[in-house]
Amino acid sequence: MKIALDAMGGDFAPDVTIAGALDAVNEFGLDIILVGNEEKINPCLAGKKFNLSKITIVHTDEAVDINDKASTALRKKRNSSIHLAIELVKNGEANAVVSAGHSGVVMAASLFILGKLPKVDRPAIATIMPSLTGHFLLIDAGANVDCEPLNLLQFGYMGEAYYKAIFKNESPRVAILSIGEEDTKGNELTKDAFKYMKKANFNFIGNIEGKDIFQGGADVIVCDGFIGNIALKVSEGLAEMILKMLKMEIANLTTGKLGYLLIKPAIRNFKKRTDYSEYGGAPLLGINGTSIISHGRSSAKAIKNALWVAAEMASKEVHLRIMENLKDFAEFSKK
Amino acid sequence: MKIALDAMGGDFAPDVTIAGALDAVNEFGLDIILVGNEEKINPCLAGKKFNLSKITIVHTDEAVDINDKASTALRKKRNSSIHLAIELVKNGEANAVVSAGHSGVVMAASLFILGKLPKVDRPAIATIMPSLTGHFLLIDAGANVDCEPLNLLQFGYMGEAYYKAIFKNESPRVAILSIGEEDTKGNELTKDAFKYMKKANFNFIGNIEGKDIFQGGADVIVCDGFIGNIALKVSEGLAEMILKMLKMEIANLTTGKLGYLLIKPAIRNFKKRTDYSEYGGAPLLGINGTSIISHGRSSAKAIKNALWVAAEMASKEVHLRIMENLKDFAEFSKK
Repeated sequence: MKIALDAMGGDFAPDVTIAGALDAVNEFGLDIILVGNEEKINPCLAGKKFNLSKITIVHTDEAVDINDKASTALRKKRNSSIHLAIELVKNGEANAVVSAGHSGVVMAASLFILGKLPKVDRPAIATIMPSLTGHFLLIDAGANVDCEPLNLLQFGYMGEAYYKAIFKNESPRVAILSIGEEDTKGNELTKDAFKYMKKANFNFIGNIEGKDIFQGGADVIVCDGFIGNIALKVSEGLAEMILKMLKMEIANLTTGKLGYLLIKPAIRNFKKRTDYSEYGGAPLLGINGTSIISHGRSSAKAIKNALWVAAEMASKEVHLRIMENLKDFAEFSKK
Repeated sequence: MKIALDAMGGDFAPDVTIAGALDAVNEFGLDIILVGNEEKINPCLAGKKFNLSKITIVHTDEAVDINDKASTALRKKRNSSIHLAIELVKNGEANAVVSAGHSGVVMAASLFILGKLPKVDRPAIATIMPSLTGHFLLIDAGANVDCEPLNLLQFGYMGEAYYKAIFKNESPRVAILSIGEEDTKGNELTKDAFKYMKKANFNFIGNIEGKDIFQGGADVIVCDGFIGNIALKVSEGLAEMILKMLKMEIANLTTGKLGYLLIKPAIRNFKKRTDYSEYGGAPLLGINGTSIISHGRSSAKAIKNALWVAAEMASKEVHLRIMENLKDFAEFSKK
């Protein structure tokens, strides 16, 4: 399995990004194509232990800057590491692509270069979030800010195919994120989507409320990209606040220092359970190929795991499963 | 200051609800009108210490059940404790009303009986949430699931008036909850609302992202009621999950029991800082009067604090300030 990695993508690139690639080579035996500036890549490889035959470099000295406007970068930086990495998938030289670079550009370039799958109107970002019982998939986490009900139905099909493949669950429970469980609760979008979903041939369990998503109430949670992004970012911000507040309150206690030492392994385990880097990135589903968008702040571990997810998706041919899922879409899309 | 309280409202009514009322009498010297079934109210008062002249009872044996359909209860239960309590405000016999009963009915009956303020299109629920630096106001937290840009502008004016009055802040920072800080980021609704907001004569600071709301980045955060409800419920659910997970992880440690004992006061302080009952309820802003919707699970403390907020809002005449704020609304509402 050969994965193209945008070596210049990520706040800590290229060193941390490349460290993740080497870990993926050593742990999972993946073949990685590092795309980026050779002069910057080579020093990151020097002195490291890895199977030389597993790493190749595709050189380019163009890179997208995080401050670039997505539409401009998409048009004018066609030799950027993001573009070239995605083109390797298009040309069949790589099975999948991972980038922690400018997420708007990765998304747009993936769509532009690889194209949409037949019958998909809007590709969507699928992100894994932790719950008390394990995890769930949130789709769309930010690709489409204004959606139609049929888009949500497609997100259900795409998310289900991905979840099945990655988590080996034959019948994931699909739900719509809404403000009440009854089909009459929600906004116009979710109420209309509900009518479609209940005719779909996947395990649709109805609406799920915000307070229940972390209880493990559903496996695939569907929403428009605006809601999804708000839910995701509110969660990140709140988790950060809670840990900071708890630490501050503990630090204020005379018994706090000792107490903290005694529970520190628990906090470490908690962080591990809720760490985004365990999954490493979010795929753009609905395109003709496998493209993973990783967090800008990705650690080496996040990159390593994103490469693993990319390989897993490519080997399971998730994009073909999505196509298969949507084969009879015209039939399901009757209210 | 005389506050009408729906004595039958709340999951633990009437005893817990009435206990909160007595605390408000004793701590704040408020006059409370308990509206509900006298036969059930009297035993809750028996043997309690309070100034008898401060409590009066308005009897009714009709009550709204939490499983009633809002529209039906609104029409058919016109003598319910919710209806009668709100009518006391309408008739000038009470300065404000508090109910922890069926929130849909409290909202609809408040609107129906007290009416909207001039120039308000959609009343909205304003809820206080904790942040690292204190707290912020989220408006709309669930009254209006589908909104127009001008509704969001009005929410800004209403939230600002409330925040100013309750928190004695002369220039609260108003922001739109969105998926990026730039005015070009967001969905159609927020992008259009942004154009209105920047012409408004309050301290509009632009968009705020979900991850920044808990950092104290804004005082009044405006969004449609669907988004607001999702953000609120996701936060409640996540906070619950984090505390549960941390406790589980701590319990798994051999040193956990002692460590937990040592940091327990910190967890208590943390809970106090983030406890919804500190503010006790959320007002419906934009109606001609003061009506507070409390959480169904309200503790005595939550009811007590809701009564305090109601008295504070009534004495500051927040509804008149909102009217004043919206006086020149036609001018601000030009893009």
